Amino acid sequence: MSSDQDIAGLRQEVADVTKEIIDLISTRNELAKKIAAAKVRGALPAEDPRVEDALVRVVVRECEEKGVSKEVGLKVLSTLLAESKRVQGFKSKQQLITPMMMSAKAQQIEATGRQLLRLDVGEPNFHPPKAVLDATSEALYGFKTHYTGTRGIPALVSAVRGYLQRKHSFTAKDTELIVNPGGRFGVYLALSTTVAEGESAIVIEPNWPAYKEGLQYIGARPISVHTTLEEGWLPSAEAIHDAIRPNTKAIVLSYPANPTGAILSPPKFKEIVDLANDHRLTVISDEIYTDYANKPCPSILSSGAEKFILTASFSKTWAMTGFRVGYTVSSEETISKMMKIQSLLLTSVPEFIQYGAIKALESDSEVVRNSEAMIVRINEACSELDAISALEYVKPDGAMYVFPQAKKTDFDCVSFTMKLLEEKGVTVSPGTGFGDYPRAFRISLGGSDDTIVQGIRKIGELLA
Amino acid sequence: MSSDQDIAGLRQEVADVTKEIIDLISTRNELAKKIAAAKVRGALPAEDPRVEDALVRVVVRECEEKGVSKEVGLKVLSTLLAESKRVQGFKSKQQLITPMMMSAKAQQIEATGRQLLRLDVGEPNFHPPKAVLDATSEALYGFKTHYTGTRGIPALVSAVRGYLQRKHSFTAKDTELIVNPGGRFGVYLALSTTVAEGESAIVIEPNWPAYKEGLQYIGARPISVHTTLEEGWLPSAEAIHDAIRPNTKAIVLSYPANPTGAILSPPKFKEIVDLANDHRLTVISDEIYTDYANKPCPSILSSGAEKFILTASFSKTWAMTGFRVGYTVSSEETISKMMKIQSLLLTSVPEFIQYGAIKALESDSEVVRNSEAMIVRINEACSELDAISALEYVKPDGAMYVFPQAKKTDFDCVSFTMKLLEEKGVTVSPGTGFGDYPRAFRISLGGSDDTIVQGIRKIGELLA
Repeated sequence: MSSDQDIAGLRQEVADVTKEIIDLISTRNELAKKIAAAKVRGALPAEDPRVEDALVRVVVRECEEKGVSKEVGLKVLSTLLAESKRVQGFKSKQQLITPMMMSAKAQQIEATGRQLLRLDVGEPNFHPPKAVLDATSEALYGFKTHYTGTRGIPALVSAVRGYLQRKHSFTAKDTELIVNPGGRFGVYLALSTTVAEGESAIVIEPNWPAYKEGLQYIGARPISVHTTLEEGWLPSAEAIHDAIRPNTKAIVLSYPANPTGAILSPPKFKEIVDLANDHRLTVISDEIYTDYANKPCPSILSSGAEKFILTASFSKTWAMTGFRVGYTVSSEETISKMMKIQSLLLTSVPEFIQYGAIKALESDSEVVRNSEAMIVRINEACSELDAISALEYVKPDGAMYVFPQAKKTDFDCVSFTMKLLEEKGVTVSPGTGFGDYPRAFRISLGGSDDTIVQGIRKIGELLA
Repeated sequence: MSSDQDIAGLRQEVADVTKEIIDLISTRNELAKKIAAAKVRGALPAEDPRVEDALVRVVVRECEEKGVSKEVGLKVLSTLLAESKRVQGFKSKQQLITPMMMSAKAQQIEATGRQLLRLDVGEPNFHPPKAVLDATSEALYGFKTHYTGTRGIPALVSAVRGYLQRKHSFTAKDTELIVNPGGRFGVYLALSTTVAEGESAIVIEPNWPAYKEGLQYIGARPISVHTTLEEGWLPSAEAIHDAIRPNTKAIVLSYPANPTGAILSPPKFKEIVDLANDHRLTVISDEIYTDYANKPCPSILSSGAEKFILTASFSKTWAMTGFRVGYTVSSEETISKMMKIQSLLLTSVPEFIQYGAIKALESDSEVVRNSEAMIVRINEACSELDAISALEYVKPDGAMYVFPQAKKTDFDCVSFTMKLLEEKGVTVSPGTGFGDYPRAFRISLGGSDDTIVQGIRKIGELLA
């Protein structure tokens, strides 16, 4: 028999096996429908994450036994799980109100002429350093208006290298750095180069929604470690350990935290890093708020993490949110994967903005000024909150938010947020946007001292 | 029996079926290995796209028969195909040299001090309009340095709306528009909101590599329609028709074309749009070069396309590559999907840049000046090429490139490109970066008239 005939026969077998796989998906769908019906009969909850955990274990074991790549097995499982949910008629959960949605809503209302006290905004009202404005404008008029290499202009890459050396005594090679169009894109690159579809990453609740949303966009599963006010909003290494699944690839940390302002102590940080090292997990550390802090905040760069990604941004430290520029530090291998994605999606950060960013890295006095101003605001906000007996909170050590929680156990943060907006013209972000926190809401300290004080007093009035 | 017991039993069945699916993947892998061995014995080519086509048909039919969602079946097939290739030991094809890679290489060489004649750059050396620089700088000093809504600042969205009305007599709602950080990101959003993993889209070769790379990033398959110099680098509706598969969702067009400068005639454009309408395909029209043209270039906005996405950019028309700003026009539903992705990945385009972009839309005289300058360059380049008997080419009607082809049938564009760089210090982009064109290379007209003339003369010297 010729090779051609051999191949034709084998291909027919491949087609038959492929068909059988589709048939099994159909069988699986029938089972899923029966499960949905049984759940309705038993008035049982629609979703149980332990079921997914069990299937992940089954698939990993079977892949190992049968020599199928684990990545392929997990990806197929992820597709199957989504299909089961579809045929079971799962409604996606009630749309959460994220800080970004609150901001869009507030902007709409302001556009109608109504004045609001904005305690929702995720950016400081500080001005960027004058040197940054000058350097950006000078570059613009100097026709630095062209594409740049994806990693960033060499002068900025070198300036970031110098900054890391100075600030963290960390020696990076150019190939371990990339300049990104904002911290958000850095976070997306970090997640998408570390966690694949069907895999999972651990996130600590309450947290900035972009971590979970980013994982979902990739088709990966966020595994939440819930923390409480009683714990000072800090996770234990044990809780993180218990959250590790056979398909877990990363732990996402961000301290000072958004929305709580909590900071991990160096020993606690070290404990989590050791755990990650033991399990060959990548620590993704989003250190965007690191310069708004009243005590030293440990950095992943000096933590001994074996696999790590640092995402950083010019947005908060130098009040450059609207410049959309940040940077990422990791292994040469990971940065090289990021380069491919960033060059495909965006080419580069605007050239003249990169010249401005160089000057930011030299603007130390503004960092001190901004940080001190934020500590003052934290203190002011806390004195105001102390006068509201219906609320409890943990005093933030950094970042630019307070995350108070109602003492009333049946408090509904979403309806409170809406009522506060309607009746008092004050915007906050509901706690449910940051995790399972129906009794909490986030107060941003990005606005003026007066906005903060007046806004919190109105919160007190509504709660009285 | 209780619901709990029912469910436990059903879940066991689900786990068993899942295991069986993994086992079938293992069986499929064994078959793939046998096929690979038979190919080696028969000295047959490793890849045959018709095999994939046949499997797509099998899966679509089986999904329809068994009530499995087609999207799920195609996505699983896509995972299976990738796994088969892996176990067959497919090497990914020889790394292509894209224009972006040539540019990175040239920049590296220039950084060592060596002067090059750059005929590889994908951007014009024109200056942005003065009004754009002024408005950007003014916004910067006016502290327009904050996050904006994802769609773009209302003044820019409204200015784009006015521009589309004026230029194309097209009435867009705000909700049918989004401002993007560059045309590349617009193209990614267009592809990723239209074509899913396991689906396919038609691209016309030769083309800008980002279309194929973007599809591959999504896990979708680009189906190439090859065009030739003899056809004037234009596809026939028949060839496009023949390329449609049961999983095809979109046709990507971009005229004037990069790298050929060809423009579809209005009737030919209409024919393709009709074909797309007949097959419920989305036409993605990248009109980035539309203002560099010596004759009117049909726009998707006035084509009668039922499902379409226009991607546009400020980069070429107003020489604003380094601003990274563009916009996309589509249905409210598609734009709303794009908004979700853009807000997750990037928040927004830098605020002060958006103020500059408003002024670009009012800078008509610069558009005329840039377009006329480019036509002059096309003419100059063509007269120079006429003197090189080893090359043939089709005179471009627009864009900013010429795509000559060696008459010698065994010409190797990659080694020619490397030799040209080493011996003559001239950079071009090899034809294989744009499709299956080993005899061709792209000359960019982005540099000065002198660079173009000198560079092409040196090409002639090397070929002589």
